[in-house]
Amino acid sequence: VSVLSRNPETNVARDLGIQESTSEDVAKLSQAAELAVEEYSSRPLSWRAELLRTIADQLDADGPRLVALAREETALSVQRLENELRRTSFQFRFFADVVLDGSFLMASIDHARASPMGPLSDLRRARTPLGPVGVFGSSNFPFAFSVPGGDSASALAAGCPILIKAHPAHPATSHAAFQALERAAQLQSAPEGLLALLFGFRAGEALVDAPAVSAVGFTGSLAAGQALWRRANARDRPIPFYGELGAANPLVVTNAAAAERAVEIAKGLAGSVTLGAGQFCTKPGLLFVPADGNGDVLVSELSAALRQVPEMTMLSSEIADHFRTGTRALADHEAGRTILSDDDRGDANVRAALFEVTADAYLRSPRTVLRDECFGPAAIMIRYRTVAELHQALEATDPALTFSVFFAENDPDVARLMQDAPSKASRIIANEYPTGVGVSWSMQHGGPWPSTTVSWATSVGASAIERWLRPVTYQNCPDALLPDALRDTNPLQIPQRVDGIMHLGTELGVRG
Amino acid sequence: VSVLSRNPETNVARDLGIQESTSEDVAKLSQAAELAVEEYSSRPLSWRAELLRTIADQLDADGPRLVALAREETALSVQRLENELRRTSFQFRFFADVVLDGSFLMASIDHARASPMGPLSDLRRARTPLGPVGVFGSSNFPFAFSVPGGDSASALAAGCPILIKAHPAHPATSHAAFQALERAAQLQSAPEGLLALLFGFRAGEALVDAPAVSAVGFTGSLAAGQALWRRANARDRPIPFYGELGAANPLVVTNAAAAERAVEIAKGLAGSVTLGAGQFCTKPGLLFVPADGNGDVLVSELSAALRQVPEMTMLSSEIADHFRTGTRALADHEAGRTILSDDDRGDANVRAALFEVTADAYLRSPRTVLRDECFGPAAIMIRYRTVAELHQALEATDPALTFSVFFAENDPDVARLMQDAPSKASRIIANEYPTGVGVSWSMQHGGPWPSTTVSWATSVGASAIERWLRPVTYQNCPDALLPDALRDTNPLQIPQRVDGIMHLGTELGVRG
Repeated sequence: VSVLSRNPETNVARDLGIQESTSEDVAKLSQAAELAVEEYSSRPLSWRAELLRTIADQLDADGPRLVALAREETALSVQRLENELRRTSFQFRFFADVVLDGSFLMASIDHARASPMGPLSDLRRARTPLGPVGVFGSSNFPFAFSVPGGDSASALAAGCPILIKAHPAHPATSHAAFQALERAAQLQSAPEGLLALLFGFRAGEALVDAPAVSAVGFTGSLAAGQALWRRANARDRPIPFYGELGAANPLVVTNAAAAERAVEIAKGLAGSVTLGAGQFCTKPGLLFVPADGNGDVLVSELSAALRQVPEMTMLSSEIADHFRTGTRALADHEAGRTILSDDDRGDANVRAALFEVTADAYLRSPRTVLRDECFGPAAIMIRYRTVAELHQALEATDPALTFSVFFAENDPDVARLMQDAPSKASRIIANEYPTGVGVSWSMQHGGPWPSTTVSWATSVGASAIERWLRPVTYQNCPDALLPDALRDTNPLQIPQRVDGIMHLGTELGVRG
Repeated sequence: VSVLSRNPETNVARDLGIQESTSEDVAKLSQAAELAVEEYSSRPLSWRAELLRTIADQLDADGPRLVALAREETALSVQRLENELRRTSFQFRFFADVVLDGSFLMASIDHARASPMGPLSDLRRARTPLGPVGVFGSSNFPFAFSVPGGDSASALAAGCPILIKAHPAHPATSHAAFQALERAAQLQSAPEGLLALLFGFRAGEALVDAPAVSAVGFTGSLAAGQALWRRANARDRPIPFYGELGAANPLVVTNAAAAERAVEIAKGLAGSVTLGAGQFCTKPGLLFVPADGNGDVLVSELSAALRQVPEMTMLSSEIADHFRTGTRALADHEAGRTILSDDDRGDANVRAALFEVTADAYLRSPRTVLRDECFGPAAIMIRYRTVAELHQALEATDPALTFSVFFAENDPDVARLMQDAPSKASRIIANEYPTGVGVSWSMQHGGPWPSTTVSWATSVGASAIERWLRPVTYQNCPDALLPDALRDTNPLQIPQRVDGIMHLGTELGVRG
């Protein structure tokens, strides 16, 4: 089967002259990746950082071509794509810093000593890479969460070869981005088998099944992600499956915030709900707004602002169809009221949609479309009459990636919202919109089930590297046989905990 | 159903006057635990550390009574039980140090700043407790891996209430140890619902199913652990299941080591294989020994030493029956040779067993009893003719908790063994026996599948706490609404990464 690239604006497909990967391809490539593990993971950290920086340089060098291809395949704006690619190469440079910092190895040395239980042997612990990692590119971020995305960057940073399954919504972009990765690997004389690119649905299943694959990173829908998670668990040797599955992210406007700045919040919301045609996994989908007159102002400003947003082209006509199915189900739901609806054209173009439901009706409608993510430019407003009703409604909402609260100064309602917040999402946002996920040491992009399959995991930020590592302890091991991270002389100059006491290893914790 | 306590030496059972827990009990207790989360996790770290130390004190105070009860129920020696209890109270004090150290919170602060992608908001990240944790006590460690064991200590240290399912092999010990925990909780005015004890098989299943339970820690058999792991995955909201499932731990004696000190190694091995009646999950079960004359010396010394070990009473006659089934299957296996066999008495008493197989025959017998853990005082020697054959045989062996290598100075064979070791186990041991797991910062007690359900997890050592936490990021959040761990003033005086740079927070990293 030939791989097709389709332009969602024109619906014209072109044959890329590439064949979908067979299960034999997956077997061969994953075995080659396994063979690359030892050589790749044993090269110096400085070399690994240099490889990541070279990848960033190559992505930058190919910028105009990559953006043009992605523009054709995704209909996302050139400005958005340029920004996404900038973020993508920044992410590789950031992980080069994370590698050089060395804390990700969690090196710890306990010298032999007496203890209340008798003599304790010399024990030393550091993290080691898991092995080949399967990466599933997303539809909505052709760079930052796809072939050159955070899963790829963090797995390479951890010392793991990668096998990437390209998303069918942008195969030409995926192929071109992979060429930049490959060129960097060649320039740095990386080991054979470090990188592989796969096309096709069955190749994705074979990737999760491949005995040589040690872990999987996935960004995509709840249905696909949970199915692949089950598949990873059903293997003879189950492997960790880190799925970032999106969410109907709640956003609360308190009574005081609505009284203070309903118009301002509504304008910002319109931008956040429609950013990238609403195709962000952090789009605020459930807006909890007071049922009073201030809330009415917010609703009418938001609907006015959304009405002015021009028609948007979604990533593909299939995704637009899915959006229309979702918004129709919302419109048909007896409990809700449609404020704005899509014009139902039937191609990849859609308009923003807005629905309203009372908190009371929301509470009486468990497990319905009112709770699910509607991927695209749509939001549901839940109108609450009392703070108690707000908390009940939040309690009845699935955990998500983000939980945003708009509040006023000295707001009587904010303390409890913030206290409950950690159970509702893994990123808690004060007076800002959730779309946009910064690459930094402190970012957490994930959340409790069902938004993520592994609740501690993040697919963005320095800690994304932790998913691809496991600790190993050496007992009574002569210095010459220890990994460099665990030598008393600390040749890598990394942070080490020695006999329980942290030592930074360098004057600065990071050389970024 | 009434809970029975059985003495394996006399086979006499006594009724403890306690009823097995019903699913209603589990529902009620897990809901109470959920209600305790907020209060418990928000008390100061210094208070939490004090609670852990008070538990240690109460366990010490009850020492003689606890040891006497455990002696009756497990037939383990008084000396062994005294040592295990010392280790158990040490473990609580150690986790008090881990709590005060504060690195487990992984606090990170990134102030708002400009970036190549535009302005980045203030982002701050710290770990938060998961919620109520279910703990399954083991059969073989009535203290250290049971009611007052490492799962309980690390979960309480993380800020999580615990619900402990007592192992049926020592219910009276479990009940008495729980009383010590409860007394400490009362002395420290801990919140209601922090601690619960459950009895009975069905209560264990209900514990894994309970909606309020957020994670499970388990130490036990492969079959039981994998079944419960599947159950945890099949929930509406799947939860992490950390199962430490034991293993047939490989131990290699190189040619040079056998030539140098076959007799010494054999004597140590006899002790390690029969320690605690061979009922350690780190017992060396697969001994890779040269097929030459030096190896023959080792085999004959080991069998002579094992023959002198007196009859041992196992934890229960069921466990002894299981041991006999295992050793009979080994004796019946066409590829192997029985060197020493149990005398098959049919009660809880057994004798050490030893089997031998050529590496060649081992390689021709995949997926048989030769590869499985035989819980109890038994070992299989795999005799290898060449180093290549040794590596092939190791390659064909399941990953385990420990991988031990006995080698000589300037040993030509050790480098490759150590290089391959991290894929074979998570604790790599040089010239020592694997039985005994020290409580320290650098311990890793876990291993790749199938020895552990989650390969990065450890059930012993400081990092055991990581299983019960997940990170949460606060974006643009005013100081007053932040958790203490994330304030600029660092009121907890804990390590914080600030704008990418690690700061220790105190002069010393740990106050242990």
